[in-house]
Amino acid sequence: MNTAENTDDETVPFPNGGGAGPAGRAGVRAVPPLHVSLITLGVVDLERAILFYEALGLTRRVRKAEGVAFFEAGAVVLSLYPRHELAADAGVVPGRAGQFGGIAIACNRSSRGEVDATLIRAVAAGGRALRPAQATFWGGYSGYVADPDGHAWEVAHNPGFPLGPDGRLSLPE
Amino acid sequence: MNTAENTDDETVPFPNGGGAGPAGRAGVRAVPPLHVSLITLGVVDLERAILFYEALGLTRRVRKAEGVAFFEAGAVVLSLYPRHELAADAGVVPGRAGQFGGIAIACNRSSRGEVDATLIRAVAAGGRALRPAQATFWGGYSGYVADPDGHAWEVAHNPGFPLGPDGRLSLPE
Repeated sequence: MNTAENTDDETVPFPNGGGAGPAGRAGVRAVPPLHVSLITLGVVDLERAILFYEALGLTRRVRKAEGVAFFEAGAVVLSLYPRHELAADAGVVPGRAGQFGGIAIACNRSSRGEVDATLIRAVAAGGRALRPAQATFWGGYSGYVADPDGHAWEVAHNPGFPLGPDGRLSLPE
Repeated sequence: MNTAENTDDETVPFPNGGGAGPAGRAGVRAVPPLHVSLITLGVVDLERAILFYEALGLTRRVRKAEGVAFFEAGAVVLSLYPRHELAADAGVVPGRAGQFGGIAIACNRSSRGEVDATLIRAVAAGGRALRPAQATFWGGYSGYVADPDGHAWEVAHNPGFPLGPDGRLSLPE
């Protein structure tokens, strides 16, 4: 879950669905390797979960974002989000065992085009599309894909969270 | 899952169960903040999962480790491990919805004492002990705790994987 209100007035044009780029394997645009930028834990009681992770010394950031919590957790961001909302965001059925473990791992990308290309490549590699990429209410762009075991990956472009070359995010205050 | 044969002849003495240290809140030793070092995805077919993540550009390391796969995934390590073995390692029931999502997030520590202290602190904060810390067959020391929503955290000391100050691991070849 990369949900956070974005203050930028991002005007990146909508990509053409990811189409084929000039490089890479047939029909698959060359994309940087997958990486982990953020992990979202689906929770039943957001306040209870926030207190738990604060007690473990995590620093909360982006406090203005409502209904979600973001923490610096070493080199990645740990986010907490209501479990049913996470399931809805990922386009999965929350109750089904083996279908949704209540966690989404996010790979943040530097552009919408890279989001599309990553999702296309994941499906080509045997993943299952969960939700096509689309513009989000928080001012970014994201979609979800499941790996062959059903683990949910969010592939996201969030112009409000600066992205380092190794997939590391910088959270605003 | 930090499982990997360790080549060091580590002789760190067994800690005294984590006991109370001189600092921190009553009965809770001061420990560094929680961080994410590694994420383990439980998988049904290890080879299939390895092929999927290799197709997404991840670099596999520690190839000598059998029955498990480790990839560099940006700033954290992504590991793949049979789902039922991960459940057994974590001390949870694999089939129960809400009980085990098939993923474990690992916080690596620089000593066995810090592993104990982290687990104790997590339980004091409202977590649920899943498996007490113990010496592992791969030459390290680890235990598991669930957060209030049941998400499994492995807290581990792995002398074979050098640990940076931000929880980042360096994987050997």
